[in-house]
Amino acid sequence: MVERLSVIGVGLIGGSFAMAARRAGLVGEVVGYGRRPENLRLAVERGAIDRIAATLPEAAAGANVILLAAPVGRCVALARELRPHAAPDALLTDVGSVKARLVADLEVAWGDGARVVGAHPIAGSEQTTVRAARADLFVGRRCVLTPTPATSPAALALVRRLWEGVGALVEEMDAAHHDALLARVSHAPHLIAYALVDAVAAWEHGAEALARAGSGFVDTTRVAGSAPELWRDVLLANAPAVRAALAEFRRALAAFEDALARDDGPGLEVGLERARAARARLGGGS
Amino acid sequence: MVERLSVIGVGLIGGSFAMAARRAGLVGEVVGYGRRPENLRLAVERGAIDRIAATLPEAAAGANVILLAAPVGRCVALARELRPHAAPDALLTDVGSVKARLVADLEVAWGDGARVVGAHPIAGSEQTTVRAARADLFVGRRCVLTPTPATSPAALALVRRLWEGVGALVEEMDAAHHDALLARVSHAPHLIAYALVDAVAAWEHGAEALARAGSGFVDTTRVAGSAPELWRDVLLANAPAVRAALAEFRRALAAFEDALARDDGPGLEVGLERARAARARLGGGS
Repeated sequence: MVERLSVIGVGLIGGSFAMAARRAGLVGEVVGYGRRPENLRLAVERGAIDRIAATLPEAAAGANVILLAAPVGRCVALARELRPHAAPDALLTDVGSVKARLVADLEVAWGDGARVVGAHPIAGSEQTTVRAARADLFVGRRCVLTPTPATSPAALALVRRLWEGVGALVEEMDAAHHDALLARVSHAPHLIAYALVDAVAAWEHGAEALARAGSGFVDTTRVAGSAPELWRDVLLANAPAVRAALAEFRRALAAFEDALARDDGPGLEVGLERARAARARLGGGS
Repeated sequence: MVERLSVIGVGLIGGSFAMAARRAGLVGEVVGYGRRPENLRLAVERGAIDRIAATLPEAAAGANVILLAAPVGRCVALARELRPHAAPDALLTDVGSVKARLVADLEVAWGDGARVVGAHPIAGSEQTTVRAARADLFVGRRCVLTPTPATSPAALALVRRLWEGVGALVEEMDAAHHDALLARVSHAPHLIAYALVDAVAAWEHGAEALARAGSGFVDTTRVAGSAPELWRDVLLANAPAVRAALAEFRRALAAFEDALARDDGPGLEVGLERARAARARLGGGS
């Protein structure tokens, strides 16, 4: 049981976690801090947080656990601003989609690596505000924790209990490995989806093409509806792995295109079937 | 009212059209022909067709309208085989996702360009059998007709009435223009989705990554669950336009990657926001 949880950034992820933790009785009081007052008021109305902190010092004061659920690029500065006002033994954790560099920087900013635990719940959607928050968002979804040699076992255990308490399937992983995996199945695919929409829109008949797109294009590009600010940060923070993933993707696409250029039906079909079969092994969804 | 409709290939599209046309009273009798006897029996059970034609000559005999709903690569050979057994004034139409070369070849194979009408209902999914057929599949979905100078106005009007009768929003378009549009919003995106899965699967930690993929990756790659045989044909038949679309996509992706390589946060965000805004103009889905 955490007496006071402060959530910095009460959007889809921060709001859903707070809502779920309150309902599960994992926390005594939840304090919320954010940039948009109307969003924080909605968070109170929706039962995600008990009260609003008007300032960062107020959010830090008396918190046992501080959850950073802000855009990745703002987390380190927030940690620095929170630190002087937080209890010495306050635990700092986050929900960023990229971990290695971020957690290392958070450990420095927090001045006490033992009480910093990186976490990444693999859930969410292109919705980003607390309006879309749900207490069951994490049920049955994976949440990756990325402890470092500095992490205290007690802090790690507490963060694990919180995520398991809201229904997530928790696993621990090396942060760099996490970032390499996510570059392949999330970060690079986001950039590919954005690029695909951008290319069609820039084509001379782009408006007409977009108006006629079927459900396949809608699905393929759904993640390109995600918030640019959030994805700018994630992509920049994981740039080397994302670029490696893009190079692998370009090679695979070039092989398909080569079969197309050679009018090689059997070769093309073998490749399509190989990909179709691999997709059947996906963990989530259909 | 069509006295007898023959559907060649009773899968998701052919089966749904037949089912919808029967229920709407647009056709007297529907005869189905296909490669898999168990699929045809299911088509009878599900009320998609009245009876099964055991052979192509039997499917052709007495049909007023013949709907080709087979893989694009088989359509011309099927038309040639059907022709000698069909009535002189029988109308031939199709549902292929690619039109220019196919319709030109069908006009030659049918020997009477006036009675050939190319059609492409923009509906469907990665399901392909009659098991997934639904009478309402085309309701509110677009169906593109691609008449040529040879097409008779009466034949065109009949095909329009049939598609409007099953609920589709019918529009006419030049076949080459259709193929250029579809290359951008369907054909190239399919190849991109297949290549994305293929690249992740080939990566050294690919199996682990696929097992951890979230709903975003599931959506982005959904169309890579489509039947390789069908997409091999479509991609080959529209190869020049698909390759042009891929070149445009590669340029857009390279621009994003360039911003990433330069650690250009503002430039990256502008591009992501431009794509997000373009996606908000999509005709279908969310």
